[in-house]
Amino acid sequence: MVERITLYSAYVCPYAHRAELALKESGLDYKRFEIDLQNKPEWYAPKVNPASKVPAIAYGGPDVDPASPSPESTKLAESLVLIEFVNDLITPTGKSLLPADPVKRANARFFIEAFQSKFGPVWYSSLFKGEHPTTILPALDALVGLLPADEGSYAVGKEWSLADAAVTPFLARAFTSLKHDIGAYDAGQGKAVWERIQNEPKYERLRKYYALVTSRESFKSTYVEDVIIETFKKRTESIRTERAANKV
Amino acid sequence: MVERITLYSAYVCPYAHRAELALKESGLDYKRFEIDLQNKPEWYAPKVNPASKVPAIAYGGPDVDPASPSPESTKLAESLVLIEFVNDLITPTGKSLLPADPVKRANARFFIEAFQSKFGPVWYSSLFKGEHPTTILPALDALVGLLPADEGSYAVGKEWSLADAAVTPFLARAFTSLKHDIGAYDAGQGKAVWERIQNEPKYERLRKYYALVTSRESFKSTYVEDVIIETFKKRTESIRTERAANKV
Ligand SMILES: N[C@@H](CCC(=O)N[C@@H](CS)C(=O)NCC(=O)O)C(=O)O
Ligand SMILES: N[C@@H](CCC(=O)N[C@@H](CS)C(=O)NCC(=O)O)C(=O)O
Repeated sequence: MVERITLYSAYVCPYAHRAELALKESGLDYKRFEIDLQNKPEWYAPKVNPASKVPAIAYGGPDVDPASPSPESTKLAESLVLIEFVNDLITPTGKSLLPADPVKRANARFFIEAFQSKFGPVWYSSLFKGEHPTTILPALDALVGLLPADEGSYAVGKEWSLADAAVTPFLARAFTSLKHDIGAYDAGQGKAVWERIQNEPKYERLRKYYALVTSRESFKSTYVEDVIIETFKKRTESIRTERAANKV
Repeated sequence: MVERITLYSAYVCPYAHRAELALKESGLDYKRFEIDLQNKPEWYAPKVNPASKVPAIAYGGPDVDPASPSPESTKLAESLVLIEFVNDLITPTGKSLLPADPVKRANARFFIEAFQSKFGPVWYSSLFKGEHPTTILPALDALVGLLPADEGSYAVGKEWSLADAAVTPFLARAFTSLKHDIGAYDAGQGKAVWERIQNEPKYERLRKYYALVTSRESFKSTYVEDVIIETFKKRTESIRTERAANKV
C-alpha cells in the first residue's frame, strides 16, 4: 500500500520539477510544499534533507503540516532516485513510468544520463557564467540524435517515461530563458539562439518533442513560467551588468 | 527470455567492474571481452560504444566473436544503466539485485549517488593529481554514515545489491593503491592513509563492510589486483616524479 507523500519542491528548480512530473503522471496523491531557496526554513536541513536541497520526499508517517515534518516519515532525496521511487511505488498496480522491456528501460536511463552530462554544464555556464548560449547547441544536437525518429514519440517511445520527466524541466527552463533573453551572457545572445532553435530545420524534431511533452497536463500544472523568469532575471542581471562593465 | 550477453570490460576500470559484479551475481551467462584502454581496437567506438568507453554490453543477436560485433545486437553503455539492466533481465525469474521495498530501493540508489559524488572527485585528485590522499577520508566517513549499523550487513541490508556493485570497485582500487602507496601524491602518503583506515576505530564498520563484499565469489573472480597495481603504477609514477622535481 502506498503511504502518505509530501514533496518539498521549488518552482525554479529543474531537479525538483522532475519529481513533480513523475508524481503527477503517477496519479498518486501528494502534498507539495514550496521551499524558498533564497530563504530556506531553518528546519529544512535538519528535519528533511541534510544536503539542504530540493527535491526531497517525506514518505509515510502521520498526517502533519509539511512545515513540521514528523520524525516518523522516511526522508528521501536526489531527483533521479525520487523518480525511480515514484515508479517503484506504482509498479504493483500494473502502471509504469518506464517501458516493460529491459532494453527500452536501459535506453530511458541512458537518455537521462546522456542528456544530463552533456546539457547540464553548458547550460549552467551560459545562464550563470555568461558563456555564449550557442554552447548549448551541441547538447541539443545530441538530444535530437537520441530521440526516436517518429515525430509523435516521447524520449524512448510511444509512452511518456521517466526519461521525459528528467529532461523536460531543463529544456523548459533553458527555452524560457533564451526566449526572454535572460542570462549572464550579453544582451541579445539568448534571443538569437532561441531564433535558431525555432527556425533551423535540424531542430524540427526537438520542437515537436518539446511541444509534445509540454502539452501534457503534468507539465502545464507544474510549470510556473513567471517565477522562472523573475528568479533567473534577478540572479543573472547583475552578472550580465558586471561582465559588460568589465569589457568597456 | 534472456538473450546473449557480451560485456566489453577492462580490469583496471571501476565502472566496468560494476557491470561485471552485477552480471556475476545475476547468475546470467555472458562472454567477457577485455578492451586494452591504452590501445583500443579501432572497431570499438564505431561498432560498440561511440563514447569509446568501457563498460558496454552487446545484447542479443547471433553468436559472434566479440571482436567482430554484430550489427544485430543492441549496444548499451554507462555502468549504472547496465547494472539496472542486468537486474531488469532477471526480475521476471523472481531474483533481484535490489530490495523489493520501494524505500529500500531508493536507499540503494541514493547510496550509489552519494558515494559516487563524494568519493569520485577526491579519489581521482589524489591518485592522478597528487592531492594528499587524506582528502578521501571525508568521503569514507560519509560512507560509514550511510552503512547500516549492523556489522553483517551490505550497503542497504542483509542482501548484496546494486549499491554494493557500484561502490566496491572504487573502494577496492582505492585500497589497493593506498596499501601499495601508488599514486601521484608524495611517496609514503598512501601507506600512511592506509594505516589509518586499518587502525582507526572509526573505520571499523568500513573494514567489516569491505571484508564482506570482497569475500564474495563475484568479487574474487573479477578483481585482478596485479593488473590494477601495474597499470596505476605506470600511470602515476611519472606524475609523482615530476611533482617531486618541481618542488625542489
Ligand atoms: N543532485 C540533486 C540536485 C538538486 C539541487 O541542486 N537543487 C538545488 C535547486 S535547483 C538546491 O536545492 N540547491 C540548494 C540551494 O539552492 O540552497 C538532485 O538531482 O536532486
Ligand atoms: N560514466 C561512465 C564512465 C566510464 C569510464 O569512464 N570508463 C573509462 C575507463 S575507467 C574509459 O573507458 N575511458 C576511455 C578511455 O580510457 O579511453 C560509466 O559509468 O560507465
